Amino acid sequence: MRIVVAHPRAEAREQWVRMLGELLPQAQVEGWAPGSAPADYAVGWLDEPGFFDEQTRLRAIFSAGAGVDHLMKQPGLPPQLPVVRLEDAGMGPQMIEYCLHEALRVQRRFDDYAAAQCEGAWRPLPALARTELTVGVFGLGVLGTQVASALAAFGYPVRGYSRSPKAIEGVDCFDERSGLRAFLGACRMLVLLAPLTEATRGLFDAERLGWLPAGAWLVNVARGPLIVDDALLAALDTGQLAGATLDVFAEEPLPPDHPFWRHPKVRITPHVSAMTLVEVSAPQVARKILALERGEAVGGLVDRRRGY
Amino acid sequence: MRIVVAHPRAEAREQWVRMLGELLPQAQVEGWAPGSAPADYAVGWLDEPGFFDEQTRLRAIFSAGAGVDHLMKQPGLPPQLPVVRLEDAGMGPQMIEYCLHEALRVQRRFDDYAAAQCEGAWRPLPALARTELTVGVFGLGVLGTQVASALAAFGYPVRGYSRSPKAIEGVDCFDERSGLRAFLGACRMLVLLAPLTEATRGLFDAERLGWLPAGAWLVNVARGPLIVDDALLAALDTGQLAGATLDVFAEEPLPPDHPFWRHPKVRITPHVSAMTLVEVSAPQVARKILALERGEAVGGLVDRRRGY
Repeated sequence: MRIVVAHPRAEAREQWVRMLGELLPQAQVEGWAPGSAPADYAVGWLDEPGFFDEQTRLRAIFSAGAGVDHLMKQPGLPPQLPVVRLEDAGMGPQMIEYCLHEALRVQRRFDDYAAAQCEGAWRPLPALARTELTVGVFGLGVLGTQVASALAAFGYPVRGYSRSPKAIEGVDCFDERSGLRAFLGACRMLVLLAPLTEATRGLFDAERLGWLPAGAWLVNVARGPLIVDDALLAALDTGQLAGATLDVFAEEPLPPDHPFWRHPKVRITPHVSAMTLVEVSAPQVARKILALERGEAVGGLVDRRRGY
Repeated sequence: MRIVVAHPRAEAREQWVRMLGELLPQAQVEGWAPGSAPADYAVGWLDEPGFFDEQTRLRAIFSAGAGVDHLMKQPGLPPQLPVVRLEDAGMGPQMIEYCLHEALRVQRRFDDYAAAQCEGAWRPLPALARTELTVGVFGLGVLGTQVASALAAFGYPVRGYSRSPKAIEGVDCFDERSGLRAFLGACRMLVLLAPLTEATRGLFDAERLGWLPAGAWLVNVARGPLIVDDALLAALDTGQLAGATLDVFAEEPLPPDHPFWRHPKVRITPHVSAMTLVEVSAPQVARKILALERGEAVGGLVDRRRGY
């Protein structure tokens, strides 16, 4: 069995090659380069030009991330080739940390105190009670479900939205039938955790952002293009949104002249909300390769029609 | 029965008077002013000059906060008069929120990302795992115990220090016998939650701050004078401390010319980490007054020798 790893970061590529080699001693594992021999499985970001023109014997490919939108638009990706996403792989707890930090920041008004400090002003402010900060989680996949459950367990009122109906303990679940507008209407904080698909691209435009209660806070830890950047900036400027914490962007790294960088109501992190932990991900991929070899089904198989 | 409420903030004073009046209809409850008739019980901050010269018939007094250091130094406070502190009264969950926010801020490097944003720099950084951020809680009273337990439940390694030995599930407990130096030696974040007494005043001087691991983070949500301000500033400047989040100060409001305001490694909040919730505190005080009237013991009675 041959496995190739195609990853833009050399350090990550080497770590994947080393770990998969240890976990699957029967396999030949190597980093991909143009001209590499055809492999049975490929792992990584897999966005190198010409990759799929050369690798014509693949039986399945594995994304090194939870999202596969970059893969779905890869030229030459065979329509029947099984594409497998990472499931959690240590990203759930990281997402919980990131989102809980943002909820606490808003609830306890730490940004207002940072602004007061800049002015040298001693200005105590009434805090929100946890019960006053309704958090909406848009997207209830493996990560969204974990974030929604954790925030609910901490005491925030939590609602979730997914395409198809879900039931999560302690979370008020909405779907296409109950409607996005009803869901957004009470979200004082909205966390985006849905995949980028043709259905979600540009979904958060002026109209949808206007469905949030005035003064809401937006957190995007999913994919940049879910939001229409200009609509977000306008909503921040009118006060419809009180602030936005953005970890993902339509173009990454975020271009130096993008207005997000200097907007006083925007907090930027460089796509670090949940990082792929190779030490957790490689065993997951190795287990799935062995399952496929035995002819078994694996979790995280992408529905090519839905795009995730 | 007569009860007087002495509180510097008129709004809080009126809320206390109204709630105690409702809870104890048999009592005459009023705001204190110079010349008020002698009362049986007094509630509030009780730091008005001359208060204890006039109020000579008191049977017990109740602090409107968890700390009583301001009361202990009140001139004229009779040595035998029972002093009762608030116990939790809604402050525990607030302290947990504040301290968890600070732990997440440090663990996930949100300050580094805020600094990078100011420079317009896209700079992903390795995060700490929760298991790498050992949090020390100095003071294991009602609030310290709750904070230590909550941080441990979230997954941080937590150690606690108290004068006398304690046992808290999931928390590595230190006391005078095991020693402060051993306790401090592994605290990547140190949370101060101890009362201000003659034993704790100025305790965190250059020597004790030097016992922390290099690059530690200090959070003071107890009382300002636990720290020697100049020693803290020096430790921040040498890098012995990576940062400090300060909610309490030797003088409050923090004077406009204090160097903390503009220090890049200091985060200031204006004594808001846990606010007294009158709607929770007044029923507690009312219950204790009724217990004292029946000749029963009450929790939160201050040991005048220890000072808390």
